[in-house]
Amino acid sequence: MNSASYKSWLQYDAIKDVKKQDKLAEWCQNIALYDQSLQVKSAKEELVRGLTSIVGIKPQISNSVNHAIVLSTRETLPKEAIHIEAQRLEDLNDEGFIIESDLQTKSVYLVGNSPTGVLYAVFRFLRDIQRDQEIHSFNVIDRPRNQIRMMNQWDNMDGSIERGYAGQSIFYKDNEFRKDLERVKDYARLLASVGINAISINNVNVFEVETHLITKRFLPDVAEVADVFRAYGIKTFLSINYASPIQIGNLATADPLDEQVKAWWKAKAQEIYDFIPDFGGFVVKADSEHRPGPFSYGRDHADGSNMLAEALEPFNGIVIWRCFVYNCLQDWRDRKTDRARAAYDHFKKLDGQFRENVVLQIKNGPMDFQVREPVSPLFGAMEQTNQVLEFQVTQEYTGQQKDLCYLVPLWKEVLDFNTFANGGNASVKSIIDGSLYDNKYSGIAAVSNIGDDENWTGHTLAQANLYGYGRLIWDPELSSEQIADEWIRLTFGEDRQVNDSVYPMLLHSWSIYENYTAPLGIGWMVNPNHHYGPNIDGYEYSVWGTYHFADWQGIGVDRTVKSGTGYAGQYFSPNAKMYESIESCPDELILFFHHVPYTHRLKSGETVIQHIYNTHFKGVEQVEELISTWEKVKGRIDGERYHNVRERLDMQLSNAKEWRDMVNTYFYRKSGITDEKKRTIY
Amino acid sequence: MNSASYKSWLQYDAIKDVKKQDKLAEWCQNIALYDQSLQVKSAKEELVRGLTSIVGIKPQISNSVNHAIVLSTRETLPKEAIHIEAQRLEDLNDEGFIIESDLQTKSVYLVGNSPTGVLYAVFRFLRDIQRDQEIHSFNVIDRPRNQIRMMNQWDNMDGSIERGYAGQSIFYKDNEFRKDLERVKDYARLLASVGINAISINNVNVFEVETHLITKRFLPDVAEVADVFRAYGIKTFLSINYASPIQIGNLATADPLDEQVKAWWKAKAQEIYDFIPDFGGFVVKADSEHRPGPFSYGRDHADGSNMLAEALEPFNGIVIWRCFVYNCLQDWRDRKTDRARAAYDHFKKLDGQFRENVVLQIKNGPMDFQVREPVSPLFGAMEQTNQVLEFQVTQEYTGQQKDLCYLVPLWKEVLDFNTFANGGNASVKSIIDGSLYDNKYSGIAAVSNIGDDENWTGHTLAQANLYGYGRLIWDPELSSEQIADEWIRLTFGEDRQVNDSVYPMLLHSWSIYENYTAPLGIGWMVNPNHHYGPNIDGYEYSVWGTYHFADWQGIGVDRTVKSGTGYAGQYFSPNAKMYESIESCPDELILFFHHVPYTHRLKSGETVIQHIYNTHFKGVEQVEELISTWEKVKGRIDGERYHNVRERLDMQLSNAKEWRDMVNTYFYRKSGITDEKKRTIY
Repeated sequence: MNSASYKSWLQYDAIKDVKKQDKLAEWCQNIALYDQSLQVKSAKEELVRGLTSIVGIKPQISNSVNHAIVLSTRETLPKEAIHIEAQRLEDLNDEGFIIESDLQTKSVYLVGNSPTGVLYAVFRFLRDIQRDQEIHSFNVIDRPRNQIRMMNQWDNMDGSIERGYAGQSIFYKDNEFRKDLERVKDYARLLASVGINAISINNVNVFEVETHLITKRFLPDVAEVADVFRAYGIKTFLSINYASPIQIGNLATADPLDEQVKAWWKAKAQEIYDFIPDFGGFVVKADSEHRPGPFSYGRDHADGSNMLAEALEPFNGIVIWRCFVYNCLQDWRDRKTDRARAAYDHFKKLDGQFRENVVLQIKNGPMDFQVREPVSPLFGAMEQTNQVLEFQVTQEYTGQQKDLCYLVPLWKEVLDFNTFANGGNASVKSIIDGSLYDNKYSGIAAVSNIGDDENWTGHTLAQANLYGYGRLIWDPELSSEQIADEWIRLTFGEDRQVNDSVYPMLLHSWSIYENYTAPLGIGWMVNPNHHYGPNIDGYEYSVWGTYHFADWQGIGVDRTVKSGTGYAGQYFSPNAKMYESIESCPDELILFFHHVPYTHRLKSGETVIQHIYNTHFKGVEQVEELISTWEKVKGRIDGERYHNVRERLDMQLSNAKEWRDMVNTYFYRKSGITDEKKRTIY
Repeated sequence: MNSASYKSWLQYDAIKDVKKQDKLAEWCQNIALYDQSLQVKSAKEELVRGLTSIVGIKPQISNSVNHAIVLSTRETLPKEAIHIEAQRLEDLNDEGFIIESDLQTKSVYLVGNSPTGVLYAVFRFLRDIQRDQEIHSFNVIDRPRNQIRMMNQWDNMDGSIERGYAGQSIFYKDNEFRKDLERVKDYARLLASVGINAISINNVNVFEVETHLITKRFLPDVAEVADVFRAYGIKTFLSINYASPIQIGNLATADPLDEQVKAWWKAKAQEIYDFIPDFGGFVVKADSEHRPGPFSYGRDHADGSNMLAEALEPFNGIVIWRCFVYNCLQDWRDRKTDRARAAYDHFKKLDGQFRENVVLQIKNGPMDFQVREPVSPLFGAMEQTNQVLEFQVTQEYTGQQKDLCYLVPLWKEVLDFNTFANGGNASVKSIIDGSLYDNKYSGIAAVSNIGDDENWTGHTLAQANLYGYGRLIWDPELSSEQIADEWIRLTFGEDRQVNDSVYPMLLHSWSIYENYTAPLGIGWMVNPNHHYGPNIDGYEYSVWGTYHFADWQGIGVDRTVKSGTGYAGQYFSPNAKMYESIESCPDELILFFHHVPYTHRLKSGETVIQHIYNTHFKGVEQVEELISTWEKVKGRIDGERYHNVRERLDMQLSNAKEWRDMVNTYFYRKSGITDEKKRTIY
């Protein structure tokens, strides 16, 4: 657990510049602690670890602010710190902090509005001194923009991880909790370092064994895990099985309006909070993909979630209710039903009916984490309902951590998208940070990409997605470029040449992946079940509602109001109009909204078919470039990480070629239109 | 185990005609036994069981031939039987028999050339008295036309059955042999009743546990099973793992030319025969679909099989070596490699190099048990090599015992096919009965369709395939109609109305299944792995060498010598010429041999595309007719079997509709050609 792979962005490489190191040593001799809470203890531990490694001396714990890194909450600040502008913290939320250098005492004050704020300040401090920040001139004020910053583990207790591509679960093995929680603690460090403050520790699909997580059999274990996360400012949640009252409660029903069911959940909540007083609450996948839910009893999602919320309310717990609800037994012959419409159709009408501690969790797009989708029209559509956005850090449809795909640019597009809700300028980020509608609860959740592989994420460069997710939702104004630069330097050190290689690799990777996979927003075309690799008709004649309708003339789904499924009309004006018209619909989503002939000319000037051929040939060439770019870091980083990435890039190249040839062949065989450039199509 | 479902065609229904019953009672009062061997004991047991049930009286064992059914081998015939024309048996093989009535003594003589011959005579006798045969006028002489009449169980020791559609294994459970062999005995009865004389009791894919079947751990169990089968004239074989010397012998190699390996197999053979003195030998799938084989050591199939044959030779054991060898990691882009060529290309050149006790087992077609394939060109192509034909009774690609598909007509087409080997009239049946080239060993094997479902075969009507397989390979001159009629009457009794329903259902079923599935000999178009239900491109971009090459203009595989893979040239003249030319190639195989435009006009007058539409609409209508035909038997047979078939027909209808719509939609979307009759295509 001491390899560079494992340490990821918490390398804490020693500063090589002797002058800088001396200066740091002078300032960082001591740590002065003015708070004894758990999270500040973690902060101190991390600071000791970081400084010892970066500066090369182990700081002492001191009672004086002189030559010290001062850790304190605003309330516990010592008198000597009277000149520190701590009043600025008043404008910040609970988790905000300031970092301020004091030239006179050669001290740096890390002051948080809460112990967790102090912890965040330490991670920020360590990050900054490894890069360009001079120790004597800290003047930082920072706070997270989003309230709930959550990680969803899709871990099963048998050790498997649904859509996991980096080994087995770090939490479970053989249907028990792992005994050794050291790795969970390191995961908590990684998460806290980028500001994650909530985690659900089991798969949203809750099966037999996991249903028992909320029973005495496992609650002591859950409490132990919660202890680990608590010390890093992270609240623990559980995914629950909606049919629990039947499966473990011996009731005949799970009807949310049944008094016995209500009483059962209330008692259950009490029991959970007896073990974990600051338990976060429940994550619920109900009436979705064969999971049980209120529909079985003729109740709706408001009935279903409110009942749970009522049970959690006395303990300040919340219910995070997923909106990923659609008909997964669709008839492919039926071109009227549109899965993309489902979340909006199910939930929009329930606006205003949810309790205050219910939060709807909405996937970023209307389908399912495709490489390209429009933003879900549900964002902003429910003025009176708490909303959390759901991203997927794990690369289910985006290369499964075999293929490189830095997802921050995708997420930024979502966050920056103007929904035009509330009559005007209403970006997604302003909705899910709670500011537009002044929500009590709001924020962002994401499916984790880690497992017990040495490097956490299978593909070393996929660490950047975990890092980037945390950083971006802390501050959605950060650019993809900034985040990439930060991550590379923290991960591989201050080697210009490494940065020059990895930086463009990350930043181009999403577009490269899109180039060689499903074109122009149509999505899917993957192998069923495992979702890796091309299978153009893989979901075409299936029950999943995911069709491309390619025929000899054209391709795409007509989702217009005028002649299609009407999905485009779920957006606020002028987005609805933009998507409705072929002329104004952006190229990259043209096949998501319109069925067009292969000869349709895109705004780029290319026809659809020629665009397909061009991007697919280009995508493979770009992967070849990724490989030659990566070769430049050879010898400049450790062999383990070099080889890991090289191996993955080789897999990516082979995958990209399969995609190129299958997609091109498929469309050539269907359309009969030859490639203008006469390249090889089989 | 006493249900009508379970008893299948050994119902032994009581004769309802009182006069006939009285007469039978008069003749069948006694059984006179003139041989005490195992098989004659089984024969007597069966006769007691049969007569007790059919005639309603339990026959006594007697020392006199008067009023008796006399069971005897030719050698042990008593003097009183001097007038019986037993010399006719001289012209028959070991398993032949006569049945002769003696009006004077009111006896029937069942005389075999061997004890097993007597057993076969009893089954024939019981079959005949249930139908139209008068007891006083038996004058039967019969013998099996094929020497090896084998059943291959694809059972795994965990209880699963590869390509099994009728429950779990009757042999194994939880990686052990089942303790109770009662069901195995009833299976032996069923097999012996139709003349099967050999069985391999484990899957040709030999995995971890099954590799140990040839060790002391399991040989006592194998011996017990062999005891059961022996009593019914059936020899037991085992499928072996070619890498056994490594996996269980602690050798470093399985190279067939290695002296240690040879010695190991010789010792192993000795060990097996110590347990089972009449052990049949080995069935071997080597260098096929990732199974180990001689290729790993740079040896060929002759080297590989001869080494095993040498080990078995002292015990009269044989090696049945499967020819299902092909490249299963093909590149779909490569249109030169042709899986259909593989068996011929691999084996033809080895003719003359195999030992006398090696038998090659050749699947009926060059691909893999599709609903329509040409006959394998390997039949007749190896004059100096023993050949066994392999059929598949289990309905892997023919409806998986959910869909009705009576396979006897398919098998008959294969057996009757004139290969034109040896310069003239050389039907497949004359090759695999050993007569054309006077082979030492020859015959037919087939993959079984039974499991531990109450009715053995999942679909009650699929019992007809097991029955029909045995009857047809006993006498390839029997017609599909005769066999169907026999099976229906033995299974459901002498109800004209039941016969009038089931008979056409069976006889049309293959054509119906072909109508709604892959058209015109192209095959596949199934879901990968499990192989049930339509997936037109399911194997199109795969490694399996099973492509249809459909594009906007046409479909089919060019296997001509002139412009294609050359496969057509593997046949003897004039077959080679017939397949080579689009004009002479039969319609039903046109897409197997030729890539043709959708507008190509078939001999039927239809275009290819209109043929596809027509057959697919028709196929569904025909399944609807099957259901209404089956409804006519309601109340005329037991509810269990009625409901079983009805349920399966409902599944078939739903499957047929999926096939119809997916195939039609696929080709409409690809070709853009509308249905002449304007029926619904999605």
